[in-house]
Amino acid sequence: MYSFNNDYSEGAHPKILEAMIQANLIQNGGYGLDDHCAHARELIQKEISRSDADVHFITGGTQTNLTTIAAALRPWQAVISTDKGHINVHETGAIEATGHKVIAMPCKDGKMTPADILKALDDHSTEHMVQPKMVYISNSTEIGTQYTKAELESLHHTCRQKELYLFLDGARLGTALTSSINDLSLADIANLTDAFYIGGTKNGALFGEALIILNQDLKQDLRFLVKQRGAMLAKGWLLGIQFEELFQNNLFYELSAHANEMATMLRDGITACGISFYSNSMTNQLFPIFPDEVIAKLEKDFLFSVEKELDNNHTVVRLVTSWATKKDACRNFIKSLKTYLS
Amino acid sequence: MYSFNNDYSEGAHPKILEAMIQANLIQNGGYGLDDHCAHARELIQKEISRSDADVHFITGGTQTNLTTIAAALRPWQAVISTDKGHINVHETGAIEATGHKVIAMPCKDGKMTPADILKALDDHSTEHMVQPKMVYISNSTEIGTQYTKAELESLHHTCRQKELYLFLDGARLGTALTSSINDLSLADIANLTDAFYIGGTKNGALFGEALIILNQDLKQDLRFLVKQRGAMLAKGWLLGIQFEELFQNNLFYELSAHANEMATMLRDGITACGISFYSNSMTNQLFPIFPDEVIAKLEKDFLFSVEKELDNNHTVVRLVTSWATKKDACRNFIKSLKTYLS
Amino acid sequence: MYSFNNDYSEGAHPKILEAMIQANLIQNGGYGLDDHCAHARELIQKEISRSDADVHFITGGTQTNLTTIAAALRPWQAVISTDKGHINVHETGAIEATGHKVIAMPCKDGKMTPADILKALDDHSTEHMVQPKMVYISNSTEIGTQYTKAELESLHHTCRQKELYLFLDGARLGTALTSSINDLSLADIANLTDAFYIGGTKNGALFGEALIILNQDLKQDLRFLVKQRGAMLAKGWLLGIQFEELFQNNLFYELSAHANEMATMLRDGITACGISFYSNSMTNQLFPIFPDEVIAKLEKDFLFSVEKELDNNHTVVRLVTSWATKKDACRNFIKSLKTYLS
Amino acid sequence: MYSFNNDYSEGAHPKILEAMIQANLIQNGGYGLDDHCAHARELIQKEISRSDADVHFITGGTQTNLTTIAAALRPWQAVISTDKGHINVHETGAIEATGHKVIAMPCKDGKMTPADILKALDDHSTEHMVQPKMVYISNSTEIGTQYTKAELESLHHTCRQKELYLFLDGARLGTALTSSINDLSLADIANLTDAFYIGGTKNGALFGEALIILNQDLKQDLRFLVKQRGAMLAKGWLLGIQFEELFQNNLFYELSAHANEMATMLRDGITACGISFYSNSMTNQLFPIFPDEVIAKLEKDFLFSVEKELDNNHTVVRLVTSWATKKDACRNFIKSLKTYLS
Repeated sequence: MYSFNNDYSEGAHPKILEAMIQANLIQNGGYGLDDHCAHARELIQKEISRSDADVHFITGGTQTNLTTIAAALRPWQAVISTDKGHINVHETGAIEATGHKVIAMPCKDGKMTPADILKALDDHSTEHMVQPKMVYISNSTEIGTQYTKAELESLHHTCRQKELYLFLDGARLGTALTSSINDLSLADIANLTDAFYIGGTKNGALFGEALIILNQDLKQDLRFLVKQRGAMLAKGWLLGIQFEELFQNNLFYELSAHANEMATMLRDGITACGISFYSNSMTNQLFPIFPDEVIAKLEKDFLFSVEKELDNNHTVVRLVTSWATKKDACRNFIKSLKTYLS
Repeated sequence: MYSFNNDYSEGAHPKILEAMIQANLIQNGGYGLDDHCAHARELIQKEISRSDADVHFITGGTQTNLTTIAAALRPWQAVISTDKGHINVHETGAIEATGHKVIAMPCKDGKMTPADILKALDDHSTEHMVQPKMVYISNSTEIGTQYTKAELESLHHTCRQKELYLFLDGARLGTALTSSINDLSLADIANLTDAFYIGGTKNGALFGEALIILNQDLKQDLRFLVKQRGAMLAKGWLLGIQFEELFQNNLFYELSAHANEMATMLRDGITACGISFYSNSMTNQLFPIFPDEVIAKLEKDFLFSVEKELDNNHTVVRLVTSWATKKDACRNFIKSLKTYLS
Repeated sequence: MYSFNNDYSEGAHPKILEAMIQANLIQNGGYGLDDHCAHARELIQKEISRSDADVHFITGGTQTNLTTIAAALRPWQAVISTDKGHINVHETGAIEATGHKVIAMPCKDGKMTPADILKALDDHSTEHMVQPKMVYISNSTEIGTQYTKAELESLHHTCRQKELYLFLDGARLGTALTSSINDLSLADIANLTDAFYIGGTKNGALFGEALIILNQDLKQDLRFLVKQRGAMLAKGWLLGIQFEELFQNNLFYELSAHANEMATMLRDGITACGISFYSNSMTNQLFPIFPDEVIAKLEKDFLFSVEKELDNNHTVVRLVTSWATKKDACRNFIKSLKTYLS
Repeated sequence: MYSFNNDYSEGAHPKILEAMIQANLIQNGGYGLDDHCAHARELIQKEISRSDADVHFITGGTQTNLTTIAAALRPWQAVISTDKGHINVHETGAIEATGHKVIAMPCKDGKMTPADILKALDDHSTEHMVQPKMVYISNSTEIGTQYTKAELESLHHTCRQKELYLFLDGARLGTALTSSINDLSLADIANLTDAFYIGGTKNGALFGEALIILNQDLKQDLRFLVKQRGAMLAKGWLLGIQFEELFQNNLFYELSAHANEMATMLRDGITACGISFYSNSMTNQLFPIFPDEVIAKLEKDFLFSVEKELDNNHTVVRLVTSWATKKDACRNFIKSLKTYLS
């Protein structure tokens, strides 16, 4: 049984694990105030060419989202998301639990547009309604799509004009940045958002996301909130070490590139079988539309999740590759698929 | 200038005001623990034939909604509403501010259906999503429509089957119950919901809503929460007196019937002009679709609100009548409309 | 049975009621956007000599406290109160329900001192602790004491120096300002605090508190929060009318002066009986220490509350007078006390 | 420079790290639904002789506290803690951020007594006050002291009688259970509390706390809340592996015993120097009272934290030992102390 269920089925890349082992018995200060975190911060600041950026290392994505959004918004303000946004669907109401409405805008391909933002503002025009103040996007998105530089610039422009913060959830940022159609750099993202995070959990770390705050207004006293929400790891240097490894020698990009390469193998093989996809993903999440009887057979050898039933005979499934996905597994999947389709 | 802007433009019906004047210098216990509140509770219990019901008097509708919903839900649970629901749109995120997501289901006529509830449950099936636990409906709805007994029974049945609480916002319950197409009684509503409230503010009281809790699970210690949310009026007997008057001698129904009668005058007059309506309301909120140039002229003599632009030349406006609306005002409005249309 | 239980046992002063009756059938805009509120705002701005002040009318004290504090604090910040503070004890955790800790400092006489503030800051010095950002005081206090101008100036000075907001709960401000030992004016209070409120509920209004925001930082978008917390009355002009009456022709001061006069009658009479007091109150709340057997007898004719048991034979009770307290009732109370003590 | 600053300065015990390395490339299900977590759950259920216990693995202590308390309390309820309680002081208001008041009771030695609980109940007797519903204690406590079996039984008894939940924070439970004066077992604790947690972070794990729910009322749907608060680790098996190691072959106890042994070396050496202690700790946190000039000298070679200034010349410091503390370091500390005192 091989799992394409997600990109967090294995532990850490061996280089990361090795660095943790090396440091294991060396004493460090707690709560992220240590040399590893300091060094990792510098590496990231350099990578994004923004020495003024604040960098916080947080264990998981939901924590990072809820902490950042709760820090940015006044009690009556809301965040705009696509209806597929992770904060809108898959975090058990984490944002609402901090007191804020998520304004969910319908979307076709998982992406937000300036028109969506203007519509959300138009729909919320009086003091009897929440006040939109932040736009949340994911890159790559929840359905594997990604933003072009032009698209991100136009969102940036709209947000500036309307005095909205732009926050980018980068849980899968690596696969967006290394996909074949990408034209964005980390530095671009830093210049076009008010805050974003770089996902480690889904890109070869044991755990950890690097939250990067660019906008001065969002920086103040954030560590208080990180502590309050239980998001400040006692042995914070564990996060520092992992991001040191990721941002030395391009490991971050290499791991994502591998995940994308494996996805491309799957995508090409599936396409060759005449199967179409629910979303136009060039990253590590694929959403092929399979006949139901084929799914039943594939499930005997492979783990993957069902996204949604499309009609009586067809279902969208989700296949996810990662830094650890094996070529052989992809080959076997395609081989099985061909067999079951014929 | 005459206002059809809302149903809370005037004070209280003279009988209510008179009762308040009579009691003004008599000492009463504070916080709703007084003889007037006790008597009003009895009158309502009798009206709904449910001596087991808990009755709380609360100053306003938003307070009543947020208190009831916050009391019913565990932190990870959510309330299902139509997308037009007052809690979803017009309370500045009051429910989210208590930590709970409002699951907004698209609707055509302002009403929830069992299918909507099942869809919401289907969309929220794992622990990574909020857990739907309550259904919120309004009667009459935000666009003036209303539930039939059969519709409410089917919602009740679905909620029972799925272990959901059913909560009915009755800010404008009077006009639903006295409309020409109504087949529901207050007793029916008490038997088909877990909690509901009877609106006084929009039906001739200075202020005040009577929250009625039928489900034993929702009764416990509610007064603690009412106090915490600032919803416990010091001179609580002011609420008791008003509901005593409303539920003696049928005043509650008479006032709503008047509002509906005035709305019928407007509706018939507008229809006679060949104007159609955005919603099929038989209650005191009407949503005619006027040509834009007519609106500009009507606004010189009448106050009313714009609901939404329909196309380049037509706009939906909202006209609201109340217990205090004058026949002459309605006649004048129709007369003006005819003039401006010709 | 005569009640000295509180200062909200009766309705409104006849002048206030008369004004409400006069305006009853005149149409007004909703939610505090009407001429009466505008006029009342002007009267208060003039009374405090601060045309830049924002004035909001809110139905009750708990609502006013929770709205103001929630608006002022970021999520990790806390408010400093005395341990007897209304927000710390008597609001069922209303402030914590908005997410903020109340730092309770022990006090002797119900009053905060600069030393208390410095101690609270000293106790909360790292990011692992809440960050104190506001000081909450009441005047007159929960045990009837009051601040001198010098005391308020020194609190103001400490707060400025430490970048803390100073918020004064004036639910019983009238009795502080009209007591025989007062040296503060409303204008002084406006100049020495960042926000405060003037209580109407306990000083002759049916309900209503006037929240006055002086600090520019606390003004932004407050109406959104007022709406969200259910504190925006639909028929908001009812609040405007009441504060118009209170701040025309000095009614506000006259009503408080009467309450104080009645308290002085009680205080002098009780003192003459050789009874001592738990607090040194010159306002309308008195805390005499009565022998338990006397209390049992007094309770047959008078309502009042027990504050705390002092020893096996003595108990502190609370007697409250108001704008509506009758001279005869005070005389009778003293007469009964004398009888029962002899 | 050697650190006695805390018990989370090093990584994980080598056995734990080795187990993580072994499992690194094996695919596992996410979010704690994997074989390692299942096995670790069984080991703990067996250790406490309670197969009915729910066991959740959570990354850190603040998360565990806030999740458990938020799950247990209705919105108007509060938790009773000592004034030194971690939730009261050192979690940046994490509990208040979930909407609940922490009722802080003064304590002498870091421990709660039945009398404290009764006092807290007595102080909160009306619906105008929060309703105490849970008692929070730590073992070992924040100042290194610990509960006897008799003491825990009496707290249990009081809580049962008063219908309060008893929750024990076991961030440092290992050092309590292995101290020379301990008479409690994990099974005892399971039988005497409604919920407690076993700390891994401070006892040789990289991170992780095992939350154990005994009371049926607290079990329902807890994973929803864990997810919502960002406390559900994607690679949850990392927690499972660590607790498997801790509860196989007694590693959990061995590591704590070592920490206590090192503390005893320090305690004995310090006592032999004629130095007294601020608290009577037999666990791994010591609070010696040092002359200020000695502290200045010790700080050149050792890291430790200042607890509080006692008088002009003396300060209480905190020394913490752990599973990783070296004997030589303790010896050197005592040697330095002797030198500086002479």
